[in-house]
Amino acid sequence: MTRDVTKSIAEKLVKFCQDDDTETCLNELYHPDAISVEAMTMPGADSAETKGLEAIRAKHEWWNNAFEVHDSKAQGPFLHSEDRFGVIFWYDASHKETGDRESMTELGIYTVENGQITREEFFYSP
Amino acid sequence: MTRDVTKSIAEKLVKFCQDDDTETCLNELYHPDAISVEAMTMPGADSAETKGLEAIRAKHEWWNNAFEVHDSKAQGPFLHSEDRFGVIFWYDASHKETGDRESMTELGIYTVENGQITREEFFYSP
Repeated sequence: MTRDVTKSIAEKLVKFCQDDDTETCLNELYHPDAISVEAMTMPGADSAETKGLEAIRAKHEWWNNAFEVHDSKAQGPFLHSEDRFGVIFWYDASHKETGDRESMTELGIYTVENGQITREEFFYSP
Repeated sequence: MTRDVTKSIAEKLVKFCQDDDTETCLNELYHPDAISVEAMTMPGADSAETKGLEAIRAKHEWWNNAFEVHDSKAQGPFLHSEDRFGVIFWYDASHKETGDRESMTELGIYTVENGQITREEFFYSP
């Protein structure tokens, strides 16, 4: 039962990512106090953790302002246990300021509680 | 510092997987009481969790007996925080009993404590 809920949320998240519809994805699937964790603390940041939907929205806005995405893919979901799932993300993007273009692969691991995503963790190798 | 240890173990694990050297991988990188968690409880099993290196070895043996692997890839590692990393696995394998051949992608998420892997969790969509 719980697994079915997780699977349904996981499939919706992959679809929203493929459609590049971040706003609907966050509004429909995330808990207001969801926590987003980067692979490490970024230069100038206090922590790798971002708490709450508003702060997560701001992170997406930062990404959109900093990078021009030429192509992207979201593969999955990959399920684990009752309450977690993973997604493989691939981006071909240019850093707007430097013009550096690179191909990036990262993993997103999501936790679902009571039908909402409460935590996302990103795995990559910068 | 801890992150460097995790990174080094992660890179070794990917190399051992690429070389298909499970025995050295388990002996050199895993804690004797490591826990391995499948995506779900398999039919006939009591739990999704396998505890201890001997039981993990038996799981690898089961896989080797049940499947003929035509080709495989291990991509990564993808790092997260001080103590975790992920790997993308891809297999082209045939179930020996049925002859069914399929292409499978799965994610492995690993936890490192005191320089040894203490937990591996597999994410896939059966």
